[in-house]
Amino acid sequence: MAVNFSVFEDFNAVKGVRVGVAQSAVRYKDRDDMVIFELAEGTQVAGVFTTNQFCAAPVHLCRRHLEKASPRYLLINTGNANAGTGPKGFKNAELSCQMLADATGVSPEQVLPFSTGVIGEPLNMAAFERGIPAALDNLAEDNWARAGRGIMTTDTLPKGYSKQLEINGNTVTITGLSKGAGMIMPNMATMLGFIATDAEIPAALMQGWARQLADKSFNRITIDGDTSTNDSCMLMATGQAGVVISEGSDEAEQVFAALEEVFRVLAQAIVRDGEGATKFVTIDIESAAHTQEALDVGYTVAHSPLVKTALYASDANWGRILAAVGRSGVKNFDLDKVQIFLDDVQIVEDGGRCDSYTEEKGAAVLANAEFTIRIQLARGDINERLWTCDLSHDYVSINADYRS
Amino acid sequence: MAVNFSVFEDFNAVKGVRVGVAQSAVRYKDRDDMVIFELAEGTQVAGVFTTNQFCAAPVHLCRRHLEKASPRYLLINTGNANAGTGPKGFKNAELSCQMLADATGVSPEQVLPFSTGVIGEPLNMAAFERGIPAALDNLAEDNWARAGRGIMTTDTLPKGYSKQLEINGNTVTITGLSKGAGMIMPNMATMLGFIATDAEIPAALMQGWARQLADKSFNRITIDGDTSTNDSCMLMATGQAGVVISEGSDEAEQVFAALEEVFRVLAQAIVRDGEGATKFVTIDIESAAHTQEALDVGYTVAHSPLVKTALYASDANWGRILAAVGRSGVKNFDLDKVQIFLDDVQIVEDGGRCDSYTEEKGAAVLANAEFTIRIQLARGDINERLWTCDLSHDYVSINADYRS
Repeated sequence: MAVNFSVFEDFNAVKGVRVGVAQSAVRYKDRDDMVIFELAEGTQVAGVFTTNQFCAAPVHLCRRHLEKASPRYLLINTGNANAGTGPKGFKNAELSCQMLADATGVSPEQVLPFSTGVIGEPLNMAAFERGIPAALDNLAEDNWARAGRGIMTTDTLPKGYSKQLEINGNTVTITGLSKGAGMIMPNMATMLGFIATDAEIPAALMQGWARQLADKSFNRITIDGDTSTNDSCMLMATGQAGVVISEGSDEAEQVFAALEEVFRVLAQAIVRDGEGATKFVTIDIESAAHTQEALDVGYTVAHSPLVKTALYASDANWGRILAAVGRSGVKNFDLDKVQIFLDDVQIVEDGGRCDSYTEEKGAAVLANAEFTIRIQLARGDINERLWTCDLSHDYVSINADYRS
Repeated sequence: MAVNFSVFEDFNAVKGVRVGVAQSAVRYKDRDDMVIFELAEGTQVAGVFTTNQFCAAPVHLCRRHLEKASPRYLLINTGNANAGTGPKGFKNAELSCQMLADATGVSPEQVLPFSTGVIGEPLNMAAFERGIPAALDNLAEDNWARAGRGIMTTDTLPKGYSKQLEINGNTVTITGLSKGAGMIMPNMATMLGFIATDAEIPAALMQGWARQLADKSFNRITIDGDTSTNDSCMLMATGQAGVVISEGSDEAEQVFAALEEVFRVLAQAIVRDGEGATKFVTIDIESAAHTQEALDVGYTVAHSPLVKTALYASDANWGRILAAVGRSGVKNFDLDKVQIFLDDVQIVEDGGRCDSYTEEKGAAVLANAEFTIRIQLARGDINERLWTCDLSHDYVSINADYRS
């Protein structure tokens, strides 16, 4: 049951991007499970991938193809992650690219493969023989909503977001999809994000933007602390809207801000649909000495099973939060200077329970499905924000009962 | 429901150690909640404490007193951790030591205080006025089993272990207690360990031994990855058995080995009684390049909610284990060389599913309440072992429903 997030239905097409969707039966029956993005010639593409050293064959191949050629197609299957599959898995990923290249007349290096699903099972190549022609058959600009469903695994809802802005009388569109409901689900793995715009973004900016955008969105969410083997996030800019972005311009700033919003909404959607999630929680770390310590504190709090179960219980358990801050590995930390707030209610003052705090005030905030834990470290001027969810009985059920 | 661990009842008294137990009503009613250890003059004492920077008042004071004087008394209360209580909490810890010192004629620095329980509430000093004389009244060598119950918080069973060995015709006794059921439970916090022997261990060896023993026992267990604000482990050697240990001797080796066993059993007991635990799991990391990377891999696996829920479900989900290994932060890691076994059943061979592996073989191992996950990294010759438990619905219930 997703927290404050609704089905992705309304969107704006992105000029220069066509989307095809098919039932290939890689693993699931009778549902869309293969998606193809077709990109107009000249489209700039940049990607950010999992840091898990055990990364899947398609991730390796994706990186390699991105270095060699300008992508024209993205090929995504759900149901099988093609991870833990050894050299055979890599050959299968190559073969899938070859099949789509053959069908469209591009080179195999111009195809980027993405897989999500069960780990360790051989990819069913017959599914690609069925799915690729079927998905090519229905390539269309208005197929995004269907594609959102086509890349789901344990997601309860398709996730997408669309935004437009006017620049010098032209309309720039940004539309994206994401999927994922745990940071990793090695049976049904992976966070994926595909964000396209028809603005023209110079090649020199693309990789830096993709990294910055992912770092403040997909790299600032956690459900269970596990990092997938297949996580991939792609930024695509077709340049078909008649708007050219030059570095440092006002237009660049506007488009970047709009992209930030789309990335953030898509990343948050994954947490809102987190396995068993009943709360959507923003964690703000303020006045840290540097980014890494802010993130260390934030993730230690976000990953603490004791904090997460307290949030599930709507229990404003400040001791658990403060104890997590204390074990986050920050050196020479004066915990007597730490302030902690739940929304605007201060719960910890100078490292102890705030005098003005009452259980009732805390309970009132935690009764909401969505709130912010704000932690002030009083060590510097760095602020970081990340998003997480609670740990519920359903999380255990989903992950314990999955294969049974 | 503890995994393969029974109530602590039978033990051997340690010459030179008397134990007193009382009902002080610090927090609980009608149960033992205050314990005093009285140590013979000349007893050597060494301690290992929490690394949590947010450590409790008694931990600060304990460290200070250990530097200043030879301890004669340990004073332990359960029900209130005296953590997050600021300067007032520190004064209360000092006052409790003063009260016991006044009653026994030692200096306050010769008293070591330990508290476990609720965080952030002022210590009830009236309870010490009641409890200290009452506990002193029943000081006895044979009070260990009652003391095991007297230091429990959310533990379902008292935890203790006793061992004797013969050295040159003399009997050396080692007896210890531990408590804890989560690494931290900030309402009802803390791992505590108290291990006494009547062997005479030179002062020069004590701190090194305490550190080494804790590092292979209490510092090798994890239930939920949280580190308590109050964790303390004390080694006491009264020297009353007529056996003097000299550094590097055979006797030293024998006593150290016996102490290792006692520490290990007491540490394991905490995991066996872990909150909601249904499985007791040994994680062996073999052929690591160095200790830190072995521990990084081991703890990443042990803390992964996805691995833990799979263990709960008796699901031999090798993909989740391998993915956890892959994100453990080890640099330049060749996952294609990783082998993983469940007891003697190989599940991962060269980074992929082992050809000879079947779900039935894995399920047969995981049907047991106790088993070993063995991970070979093929990077060096360092082996490390740690212990953990699964993540069950009951863990969520215990921690989510605790204050409600």
